[in-house]
Amino acid sequence: MDVAVIGLGLIGGSLLRALASAGHQVLGYDADPATRATARTAAARAPVGERWQIAGTVRDVVARAELVVIAVPLPAVAGVLDALADTGYTGLVTDVTSVKGPVRELVDRHLHGRYDGSGGQHTRLAGFVGGHPMAGRETSGFGAADPTLFTGCAWVLCLEPEVTSIGDWLELAALFTGLGARVVPAVAAEHDRAVAAVSHVPHLLAAATVAVTADDPLAGTLAAGSFRDGTRVAATRAELIAAMCGGNAAALGPALDAVLDALGQARVALTEDDPIDALRGWLGPPSAARRAWPPRPGAPVELPVRPDALLRLGRTGGWVTGVAADRRTVTSVTPVPPDPAG
Amino acid sequence: MDVAVIGLGLIGGSLLRALASAGHQVLGYDADPATRATARTAAARAPVGERWQIAGTVRDVVARAELVVIAVPLPAVAGVLDALADTGYTGLVTDVTSVKGPVRELVDRHLHGRYDGSGGQHTRLAGFVGGHPMAGRETSGFGAADPTLFTGCAWVLCLEPEVTSIGDWLELAALFTGLGARVVPAVAAEHDRAVAAVSHVPHLLAAATVAVTADDPLAGTLAAGSFRDGTRVAATRAELIAAMCGGNAAALGPALDAVLDALGQARVALTEDDPIDALRGWLGPPSAARRAWPPRPGAPVELPVRPDALLRLGRTGGWVTGVAADRRTVTSVTPVPPDPAG
Repeated sequence: MDVAVIGLGLIGGSLLRALASAGHQVLGYDADPATRATARTAAARAPVGERWQIAGTVRDVVARAELVVIAVPLPAVAGVLDALADTGYTGLVTDVTSVKGPVRELVDRHLHGRYDGSGGQHTRLAGFVGGHPMAGRETSGFGAADPTLFTGCAWVLCLEPEVTSIGDWLELAALFTGLGARVVPAVAAEHDRAVAAVSHVPHLLAAATVAVTADDPLAGTLAAGSFRDGTRVAATRAELIAAMCGGNAAALGPALDAVLDALGQARVALTEDDPIDALRGWLGPPSAARRAWPPRPGAPVELPVRPDALLRLGRTGGWVTGVAADRRTVTSVTPVPPDPAG
Repeated sequence: MDVAVIGLGLIGGSLLRALASAGHQVLGYDADPATRATARTAAARAPVGERWQIAGTVRDVVARAELVVIAVPLPAVAGVLDALADTGYTGLVTDVTSVKGPVRELVDRHLHGRYDGSGGQHTRLAGFVGGHPMAGRETSGFGAADPTLFTGCAWVLCLEPEVTSIGDWLELAALFTGLGARVVPAVAAEHDRAVAAVSHVPHLLAAATVAVTADDPLAGTLAAGSFRDGTRVAATRAELIAAMCGGNAAALGPALDAVLDALGQARVALTEDDPIDALRGWLGPPSAARRAWPPRPGAPVELPVRPDALLRLGRTGGWVTGVAADRRTVTSVTPVPPDPAG
């Protein structure tokens, strides 16, 4: 497949490398000339047959592409979509941004909307399927790119009933399962709520923990494993966390409220006559739930390609591991319920 | 040194093994007969010369001890101190509990206080120096014991001005630096505030994060690195977290309030017209602080043995790495300030 990757940070750079290693024709572009130079130099060192090329403009990078992957931070997505619309590109588009509802709106406005205003010069709209590989790291930039980053990772591909082309969705599902990812079907709103709770809230909690201890050298020295792991993601560049969390503000607000409510219960428990006993009850269910995570995969099942069946799979915690050659079924895996004996 | 370890969970079991490996005479005891049997079987498999022995009663375990280490969870400490007082033990006592003010109070009441009531049959009180190795794990029990657990770990030894015997303090500092630990001098109240912020708060945040996501299978499947690391400690047995956090309720309440305040600011930022911009300012300082952690050690300095100098060392984030043979100086290390270009 001819793939253009726009944005060569950790995720875009890793995808460029992973797709090239898998034998696809890959062309990359980054707005930063220094990043383009780094990516060009790295290409020359890659094994022959697994090399990528770097273009100097958006127009050049998409010229022959069948798929364009937008891998820039959320604040830069609108500009890339404008540039893409200007090229008249009508192939398939996906993105890897950590929020899916707002990106859909940007696509409507800056890609599909611009075609409507162009006086009918394009006969069809570019296809769009929002995506999000759950593969962040606290490192960033092309230098941190890793072609194995997506092996085993959950990769959400949005499936909006009556909007998303199932053919486009399957094309991407086949491509990303080919990189070893577990493709999870979800509508954008479900995705945004879920990642607010499991990714964006943890980033805010990590930052808050560091914020209140940063001025105490004794605390910094006593900080050990629970601090190290609990605050690891706070080391991510502030502008990346801000773009991720602020871009999902509508879903993140209620998710943060839910955690603040839970912590409010713990705060009350600390004022009880027997705070140890009071906390024990509060801690029991999450302690058991965390030991049951990650979910154990069940046996693979062939699933017919129907939006409702795919979305049900995602809602029950399942994922797609492959797409049949005839595109009529996918191979799916659903977690098995945790062993009650723990 | 003849050391008795009472309580053979993760920390007590690891200490038993570490001290035995370092050539000390070590005797262990646990209230649970099955744990004693496991520890006895493991001793038989240890290299000759690095074996420990297991006693069947508190009286037997302390009979020849120069040092008793109390390594039971906080709710069991009073009972062990009562049993210790009943034996008439007058040697040195330390503990490894994660809270130091409340343990001091228990020692006053259940160990030193009982001697006062015994009609003068003991001519001296047992020495007591509260301790806390920052070496927890989410695993527990003797089966998880690891003799290298303390290598490089910060080990607080409490130094209460005009109360703690500096000779007792140095004895323990020499013993634990001999296991590779970095010994941090602190008064109990300072310790309790610092660990509330860097350890107990992260445990509550981890549990709250799991609590609000446990019922959503999609969230469980999308949960990746930030969730895995941010909630790792929530898998600890609920009663251990409850004992640790509830036992430090007085210091943990205000520490949790500080984090809730910080999160309240983030919550407000999410409602701003430009939440990305608003969050960027909130995230900047903790992001830089987390990249500067852990503190880089400076060059070793010989420090005179004086309580004020030792406590100043702890307050500036420093630690002791060795005790001179004449017990007049210690080798100390203080962190160097982070590189502003960092």
